[in-house]
Amino acid sequence: MIMVGTQATLIGMDTDTADKTPVTLLGLGDMGTALARAWRAAGHPLTVWNRTPQKAGPLAEEGARVAATQTEAVASADGPVILCLLDDASVDEVLDGADLFGKDLVNLTTSTPAQARRRARWAEKRGARLLDGGIMAVPPMIGRPETGGYILYSGDRALFERHRELLEVPAGAKFVGEDAGHAALHDIALLSAMTGMFAGITHAFALVHEEKDLDRAELASLLVEWLGAMAGSAHEIADQLASGDYTEGVTSNLAMMTAGNDTLLASAEDQSVDPRLLTPYMELMSRRVAQGHGDEGLAGLVTLIRRE
Amino acid sequence: MIMVGTQATLIGMDTDTADKTPVTLLGLGDMGTALARAWRAAGHPLTVWNRTPQKAGPLAEEGARVAATQTEAVASADGPVILCLLDDASVDEVLDGADLFGKDLVNLTTSTPAQARRRARWAEKRGARLLDGGIMAVPPMIGRPETGGYILYSGDRALFERHRELLEVPAGAKFVGEDAGHAALHDIALLSAMTGMFAGITHAFALVHEEKDLDRAELASLLVEWLGAMAGSAHEIADQLASGDYTEGVTSNLAMMTAGNDTLLASAEDQSVDPRLLTPYMELMSRRVAQGHGDEGLAGLVTLIRRE
Repeated sequence: MIMVGTQATLIGMDTDTADKTPVTLLGLGDMGTALARAWRAAGHPLTVWNRTPQKAGPLAEEGARVAATQTEAVASADGPVILCLLDDASVDEVLDGADLFGKDLVNLTTSTPAQARRRARWAEKRGARLLDGGIMAVPPMIGRPETGGYILYSGDRALFERHRELLEVPAGAKFVGEDAGHAALHDIALLSAMTGMFAGITHAFALVHEEKDLDRAELASLLVEWLGAMAGSAHEIADQLASGDYTEGVTSNLAMMTAGNDTLLASAEDQSVDPRLLTPYMELMSRRVAQGHGDEGLAGLVTLIRRE
Repeated sequence: MIMVGTQATLIGMDTDTADKTPVTLLGLGDMGTALARAWRAAGHPLTVWNRTPQKAGPLAEEGARVAATQTEAVASADGPVILCLLDDASVDEVLDGADLFGKDLVNLTTSTPAQARRRARWAEKRGARLLDGGIMAVPPMIGRPETGGYILYSGDRALFERHRELLEVPAGAKFVGEDAGHAALHDIALLSAMTGMFAGITHAFALVHEEKDLDRAELASLLVEWLGAMAGSAHEIADQLASGDYTEGVTSNLAMMTAGNDTLLASAEDQSVDPRLLTPYMELMSRRVAQGHGDEGLAGLVTLIRRE
């Protein structure tokens, strides 16, 4: 065991961490470091480990204990073991040989839903409990609740409830189901939807690129307001998928939107913009209308990109 | 001239419209009818015309005057002439032969930016003033300010200012520039960005399609909140485009996003979703990173879809 830190820091740690659950954290990339700092700032006794130990230096100065090996870090863990590693394969490499029996693992390593599900079975075989997390924030948002960042959790509900207070320290904590893959699935779903939105915003700015006297800041404000209002369509789609009636509550149906797409494409052409970011979706709309479903809303498009 | 309406309606009209600017409206599709109803409800003397006169019946009962011909409607117009026709070609057909000299035209017919600019020159040649409008609302939102719908206007600023009160009756009115094409351009930009967002939301729901115990209403709420927050990136892009420094204020750069795309694609594969709605944008990101711009934000992608 290596103890690092000035006497003053150690005294400070003794004082403010007496009643706080200790945290063990493996992986000190930008995100791991931000998480570590948030728990330290909240007074949790903290043990850290990183493959290249140099990265732990500043945290040690802030009062963290630096474990010599990952195996020792896990063995000595009295509270949850947080994993914030490069990728799913790194979890295998780092924890190969560690005794996980009876441990509470919180895996914040970026994973696909399938990887998260495999990891839950892997943990169960080793006698560990596992909570998978998907971080909806970038490192500068960690420890700053006013930024609205949060972490999605799924898997062992009892583990989540037991450590809830601790989990809410770096960012908001939302439990989204006992299927360990569901945190990653929600994470991926949100990021995928965002990618589509960013594609649309990129197309919008490309349309006005040569318009010298067009106020882009005003356009940005209009975009933020409009997209925020129109994102509410997600509720309409969810309701339609739930009821199976894709015409339910439709204000602007596929036939109307398809007609509008011609104007969007003609305008892109006039403004010298390649419409490739939007055409795959427009083609889905046209296909669904051609199938005789012009009176539907967007829910009918969901199955068209399913591979069955 | 045809006068239609009950005596009671006519008396009502005389009373409440004494000080209101008269409105002439050509085109009574769903949108034209909703606009007509909003102006009537606000007490504006209203003259309407539609190619198939039957559509004017209900409005006549509500106190509107129904013009026998579009030429007569325009000739007798004391206030602005609102055009809400099928498309740009219909404007030529309907107004062929009408004397537009000295008239105030407000064209709410769906147009591309190029069509709106040509229409402004066309009006100028005929001695008319023209304001082009892009309606950011569906008919049920007209006359209901609480829905947040609005109409973008561009072109003749003096015309906008003169009739501002009247223009704000059916929905909010926003003037976005003296270039007549700019209302349509803003309209198209907002709808294009929305199309991208809808594509992303569709992908998100496709990812969870087979997850029986996943709460879609909760996912919809998370999507609305997340997309609303992330839409703010439009300001970051606008600022970067303005300064020309595409690394300015970047929290999540293209290199980081490109790495994340691999997880999105692997997850789509695992969840049996064809990623075609997202891949064109991911390919732009990869191309820009390969050009050595991994430290940039999204602004650098805008020029990649410009046809120069």
